[in-house]
Amino acid sequence: MDFRGAHIISVNQFERDDVEKVFAVANDMEPYARRERITKALEGAILGNMFFEPSTRTRVSFGCAFNLLGGHVRETTDVETSSISKGESLYDTARVISGYSDVIVMRHPQAGSVSEFAKASRVPVINGGDGPNEHPSQALLDLYTIKKELKSKKREIDGMHIAMVGDLKHGRTVHSLSQLLLLYKNIQFTLISPTELKMPADIVGKLQESGHTVLETDDMEAGLGDNDTVYLTRIQEERFTSKLEADIYRGQFRLNQAIYTRNCQPNTVIMHPLPRDSREDANELDNDLNQHPNLAIFRQTDNGVLVRMALFALILDVADKVEDSASTVGWYTESRFE
Amino acid sequence: MDFRGAHIISVNQFERDDVEKVFAVANDMEPYARRERITKALEGAILGNMFFEPSTRTRVSFGCAFNLLGGHVRETTDVETSSISKGESLYDTARVISGYSDVIVMRHPQAGSVSEFAKASRVPVINGGDGPNEHPSQALLDLYTIKKELKSKKREIDGMHIAMVGDLKHGRTVHSLSQLLLLYKNIQFTLISPTELKMPADIVGKLQESGHTVLETDDMEAGLGDNDTVYLTRIQEERFTSKLEADIYRGQFRLNQAIYTRNCQPNTVIMHPLPRDSREDANELDNDLNQHPNLAIFRQTDNGVLVRMALFALILDVADKVEDSASTVGWYTESRFE
Amino acid sequence: MDFRGAHIISVNQFERDDVEKVFAVANDMEPYARRERITKALEGAILGNMFFEPSTRTRVSFGCAFNLLGGHVRETTDVETSSISKGESLYDTARVISGYSDVIVMRHPQAGSVSEFAKASRVPVINGGDGPNEHPSQALLDLYTIKKELKSKKREIDGMHIAMVGDLKHGRTVHSLSQLLLLYKNIQFTLISPTELKMPADIVGKLQESGHTVLETDDMEAGLGDNDTVYLTRIQEERFTSKLEADIYRGQFRLNQAIYTRNCQPNTVIMHPLPRDSREDANELDNDLNQHPNLAIFRQTDNGVLVRMALFALILDVADKVEDSASTVGWYTESRFE
Repeated sequence: MDFRGAHIISVNQFERDDVEKVFAVANDMEPYARRERITKALEGAILGNMFFEPSTRTRVSFGCAFNLLGGHVRETTDVETSSISKGESLYDTARVISGYSDVIVMRHPQAGSVSEFAKASRVPVINGGDGPNEHPSQALLDLYTIKKELKSKKREIDGMHIAMVGDLKHGRTVHSLSQLLLLYKNIQFTLISPTELKMPADIVGKLQESGHTVLETDDMEAGLGDNDTVYLTRIQEERFTSKLEADIYRGQFRLNQAIYTRNCQPNTVIMHPLPRDSREDANELDNDLNQHPNLAIFRQTDNGVLVRMALFALILDVADKVEDSASTVGWYTESRFE
Repeated sequence: MDFRGAHIISVNQFERDDVEKVFAVANDMEPYARRERITKALEGAILGNMFFEPSTRTRVSFGCAFNLLGGHVRETTDVETSSISKGESLYDTARVISGYSDVIVMRHPQAGSVSEFAKASRVPVINGGDGPNEHPSQALLDLYTIKKELKSKKREIDGMHIAMVGDLKHGRTVHSLSQLLLLYKNIQFTLISPTELKMPADIVGKLQESGHTVLETDDMEAGLGDNDTVYLTRIQEERFTSKLEADIYRGQFRLNQAIYTRNCQPNTVIMHPLPRDSREDANELDNDLNQHPNLAIFRQTDNGVLVRMALFALILDVADKVEDSASTVGWYTESRFE
Repeated sequence: MDFRGAHIISVNQFERDDVEKVFAVANDMEPYARRERITKALEGAILGNMFFEPSTRTRVSFGCAFNLLGGHVRETTDVETSSISKGESLYDTARVISGYSDVIVMRHPQAGSVSEFAKASRVPVINGGDGPNEHPSQALLDLYTIKKELKSKKREIDGMHIAMVGDLKHGRTVHSLSQLLLLYKNIQFTLISPTELKMPADIVGKLQESGHTVLETDDMEAGLGDNDTVYLTRIQEERFTSKLEADIYRGQFRLNQAIYTRNCQPNTVIMHPLPRDSREDANELDNDLNQHPNLAIFRQTDNGVLVRMALFALILDVADKVEDSASTVGWYTESRFE
């Protein structure tokens, strides 16, 4: 695809080359995200960071990525405060807001809303999550993390073994990640979930048609062995009809030091899209693994900044110009990245 | 008036020369708003964008205008989160906040609040809307749009025919626009509204005293003909005592392609302050006109950025310096403005 | 202490030399806060301004201070919109958010939360208020103000007489200010409060052990005389179990022009942490003193910007580099500071 001026709405847009292009630019962004260098590549540009549904982490990550490229950020954080509550159509909102910025990140609770918005927008739009539907930058950062983690272990995405654990029915992140993995070869998926929360059959079917191996189980300990990566998910209360229904599943599958040691291979990478629910009745990924070198969850969010910088740089066509306006950093920075 | 360091509180402050001055500077801002050039005229300056009442569009438009001039923006979006709820007076708020910024835009639900705030402020204040009272930058962008639209049709404001449609009793925008038009000559106003929502008599009186012609009617189709501009308004539920009362009037006057073709002149410009209510029971300006070349509603909001840049540039006395620090844009921009 | 890369969590961290260091750098920041000069010392740096409890004044003051040093600001203003409500631990929040910024200011309703957050953060954290516990930048700006005000009267902190008035039991500001004053010598404290809202005995004890004199009274007029500084406080409803309980004390101690003239020395400086409650039933500091030259309350908030700039400059180690990238201001500024 041609990233220049493109909307980023769905992982389905990407060919394998596109994904690799994003990852290559993300690598180039490291010195800026690590505060070894600063760049003014987007000095004067404005990001419209339009969050019509709360998501502090994603919002700040996108805003930070744009600032790191030298640009300004204008934000909205609340659907209540917007004209949408006065009966404004997404078409109108898009026509208006796109006159205020050079690129827009939009998050909205309704599936399909960002795509509809993008059709009317006069500037490129990145989907920051449209309800239960898509969140492409999350899928990209997940896969980018897998690639980096495996590389340090001299493995690669093609041929890897990955376990996905938890609510695989509603989990937007595991759906999108699976979609991206269709572009790769010969992967073994172990899908661990309660029977009622299994990965949708159409996704399983597509994985199998692409030549991947899929194993499904509701026995977590049996499924954990023999994997390069274990990807855990949170029970998202907001995707269920009630807290009661969510409570049935919350805390069913938990990974902690003892279970990891008993079942996983010594090199198995632990991932989670975050936030993880650390309340006692959930605790899907125990804090006793916090110091484990294979716990990649905070490297994941750090990688999110790199991937989002890469998307901005590609869409606004400055990927090759970032270095031109670069300089060294004059303030205190410590080696904050692992 | 001397714009340097001035508060912009009301359209009543302006003489015709002042309005024309704003418009001339707004014209100069076009290359920056179109992202053909960037400027650092206000690099290091801080806008205090103080919204004690929600208005995403106005807030982002002002913030974007300030960013386009190179400045920083600090914001507040919620009266609940402010000291006002702890019993702080507007005097105190103004004294404190004005120590944080170089210029303040303030929106507040109470009529007169911004004027009171400005009296205590140590920096210039722009009224971003004080409840039902004033919203001067909206009136300026409306008139600026009329001027540009008519110019492209080789007409001008003096002598034009304009219809105003909808709730002319509560509509802040039509009141302020009428006030500004007192500075011009020989205009024909056709005021189309339900009898209960007629333009206040004192405004009608002032228009007539200034030599303008005023026709009033509740028959929309009869009133639409023979106009250079039709200015539609929304039924603003928040100005009525109940949703029920607002419902009586909602959707009474609608403009769509068929009605336009049947009644309007081929060159009639369609305007609306936005947001327009696109819900079925309102739909005061139909989406079937969205591609019509005379639909100026999105050019209006684009012009809002230009007019707000002009106000900042004049108040902070950099209108003549914008070009000095200008440079070309290095990132992808498409021709996004019509 | 070594400010470079340090967390600022509590006033207990400081030795007298540290406090004086902050004040010296704050003095150097004056030309920038007065908009006589701009600096790019922190160009490219990002502040994570994380407010999990509302505080417009403190939030904007920190944000403004960072902008004045040339940096970007990313913000959060609402606990409801954050991952914390999805069961995320402070540890996780800190690990994630600290990947997005170069320094974090955090405000949170729970005592001890910011300290816990800082332990997991990979970048320096400044406590912007952790519930009833600490708010060190407020204490620093209060003491900085006292120092400047007394200096103009050719007095100094050592040996001064200060009255503290109001709710001395819950008042975080008077506790922290007292703590800082332990570092100074031979001060006379007059603590004026209702019997039920007296200064905690442990603080009184520490003041006395440090060689200070402490007088306690519930008779305001008797206590006001013979002071260099009178520090008034607000009855903070949120610190009481009910509005009713707060109402018992609200408005018990009021300072106005008549009481000031009757009791205070002509040079007595009036301070208040703001916001002051100007509602009729509270009115702890009357508006009839607004023009009084010894009313220092707005100089206090102005000084807050200087002190916060100093903290950022010291923590990020640019205090000596601010001047290197400095230039004159090209836009309109008036002498807005007293």
